[in-house]
Amino acid sequence: MRGDGRRLSIVDVAAVAGVSRQTVSNVINGRDSYYSEATFERVTAAMRSLGFQPNRAAQALRSRRTMQIGYHIFGEQLDIMQGFTLHFLQALVKASAEAGNQMLVFTHHRDDPLGVFKDLVARRAVDAVILSESRVDDERARLLADSGMPFACFGRLAPGLPQQWVDVDNVAGMQPLVDLLVAEGHQRFAYLGADGDQYWKAERLEGFAAGLARHGLRVPKASVYRGPDDGIRKRTRQLLTGRNPPSAIVTSSDYVGAMVVNVAHSLGLTVGSDVAVTGFDGGAIGLMTEPSLTCARIPVERIAQELVARCLRQVEGGPNDDAGLLLPTEVVRGGSA
Amino acid sequence: MRGDGRRLSIVDVAAVAGVSRQTVSNVINGRDSYYSEATFERVTAAMRSLGFQPNRAAQALRSRRTMQIGYHIFGEQLDIMQGFTLHFLQALVKASAEAGNQMLVFTHHRDDPLGVFKDLVARRAVDAVILSESRVDDERARLLADSGMPFACFGRLAPGLPQQWVDVDNVAGMQPLVDLLVAEGHQRFAYLGADGDQYWKAERLEGFAAGLARHGLRVPKASVYRGPDDGIRKRTRQLLTGRNPPSAIVTSSDYVGAMVVNVAHSLGLTVGSDVAVTGFDGGAIGLMTEPSLTCARIPVERIAQELVARCLRQVEGGPNDDAGLLLPTEVVRGGSA
Repeated sequence: MRGDGRRLSIVDVAAVAGVSRQTVSNVINGRDSYYSEATFERVTAAMRSLGFQPNRAAQALRSRRTMQIGYHIFGEQLDIMQGFTLHFLQALVKASAEAGNQMLVFTHHRDDPLGVFKDLVARRAVDAVILSESRVDDERARLLADSGMPFACFGRLAPGLPQQWVDVDNVAGMQPLVDLLVAEGHQRFAYLGADGDQYWKAERLEGFAAGLARHGLRVPKASVYRGPDDGIRKRTRQLLTGRNPPSAIVTSSDYVGAMVVNVAHSLGLTVGSDVAVTGFDGGAIGLMTEPSLTCARIPVERIAQELVARCLRQVEGGPNDDAGLLLPTEVVRGGSA
Repeated sequence: MRGDGRRLSIVDVAAVAGVSRQTVSNVINGRDSYYSEATFERVTAAMRSLGFQPNRAAQALRSRRTMQIGYHIFGEQLDIMQGFTLHFLQALVKASAEAGNQMLVFTHHRDDPLGVFKDLVARRAVDAVILSESRVDDERARLLADSGMPFACFGRLAPGLPQQWVDVDNVAGMQPLVDLLVAEGHQRFAYLGADGDQYWKAERLEGFAAGLARHGLRVPKASVYRGPDDGIRKRTRQLLTGRNPPSAIVTSSDYVGAMVVNVAHSLGLTVGSDVAVTGFDGGAIGLMTEPSLTCARIPVERIAQELVARCLRQVEGGPNDDAGLLLPTEVVRGGSA
């Protein structure tokens, strides 16, 4: 406040610094190309001498904020992006926009996965970075942490890294699906999943087996399969046309669940009554099947909001010791089980 | 070239300007916060005196390029984004990355749709902007044109605007689908489409009617319906269980086609033999139905590449008088027709 009780404004700063109001605004808003280093020093000195520190402006100034959050996508993801990844991208754009930020989507160069991160850090082209498809001991996260660039990751990070992650509890998520199927009288189960060594794929199978064990049930080895799309379709046909077919097929994702529903259809079976099928995701794919999929829904919007909020907390308040956040899934009841 | 035949490098520029190699690199790459205006002038003067002008670097320098292309999404699109929009977003990220650029996804504030554009222009936060969901006489395009910000649009633009657009020929795209159905002996047609006043929705229906007319066929008014999802499902049921049901249902999109396939399934019909169904898009949804959809495929990747290329041509060469580009669709033959 000034002596006359009026709040200090950028007009006061401009007067002391001997520059225009517009120039002060440019400095506060980090429009780098509109002012020189010398002007920057003059304006900030004037602000310090006046004690002018409106919250946002001061923050923007300290950090030269871009109001941009980066989101890194692997090149491979861009080639095969499926429903879930796209849904997540959509949720991130929305969560960023709601927080007044824009999202810079970037991918890496084939030959140097970290080059694009180094460049972003050097140029300070973003205020923070969101990662997904974490490799747990993630070199991207390590580089960002070492560079002091705020980040948050969808997927767990190793203990040695800042615990700036949000993830979903895959093991626990399977339990209510199994409970529901057992309560409906199912005894003969099968599990079909996509191949790949991501930990969440192993966890969903683990959650399925643990869920069955709680009811004293086991699944024969031949009724568990993880493989490529063609293999999944083939195994579904074999299981459903074999002796003692499963009455319930639990799958690792809505995408796999939709394939199983389609194969069952093509065999003349009615999904929901002849055979129960469950998915895992809760996006558009599961709504497109007939009947729609009963599944564990991943709270994509909530995850995106939490990731953006974590980024902005670090941008505004510096590094913190937030712990990782493991969110529960919820059951969406469709007609497939 | 220097007198000794060696190409000029930034080392030479650094020597003449009396700055470090890194500083020259910073200037060339537009890392604004690493150098003062004075340094900028010194380095560019040295480059001019030496005649140092590698293409990319000179461009980056002249325009202070951000190597970022903006992509605008309407808030409403973010809420209901469906398969096609997400597929397009994916293709844009990929096309930008292939051209060495990153994509800044932005949405507008509810109260002022143009505010975010004005801000982008003022901050020069991007080198160019890609629009979709064009309103033909598009106020976003007008603002960008008036501001000298390069842009390109997926969807036609009014004649008074720069013809920086790429679109798909919806009318022509329907013809081969109708031809194919007629060749298979179909005579009783129906058309189901999503509601909304976008011109491409009208064009697809127009293309369907024109395609039939070429074969001397007409479709009864009661067999054409455009409305919300529930209405489409209801009308499909009515048509397929009524007297004289259509043997072929043409739809406005894969999304609508998938709904029709599912309703037909639920009525115990075999799609492909009992009733033929066609879609329009060629994305993931049509591959998820059983059988997969026969449809007109929109060349999304090509469109994204053309839009990015148009942006970069303007960024590098200034305004040009490129004409709009209307691309053909291609027929993807699935099992549904």
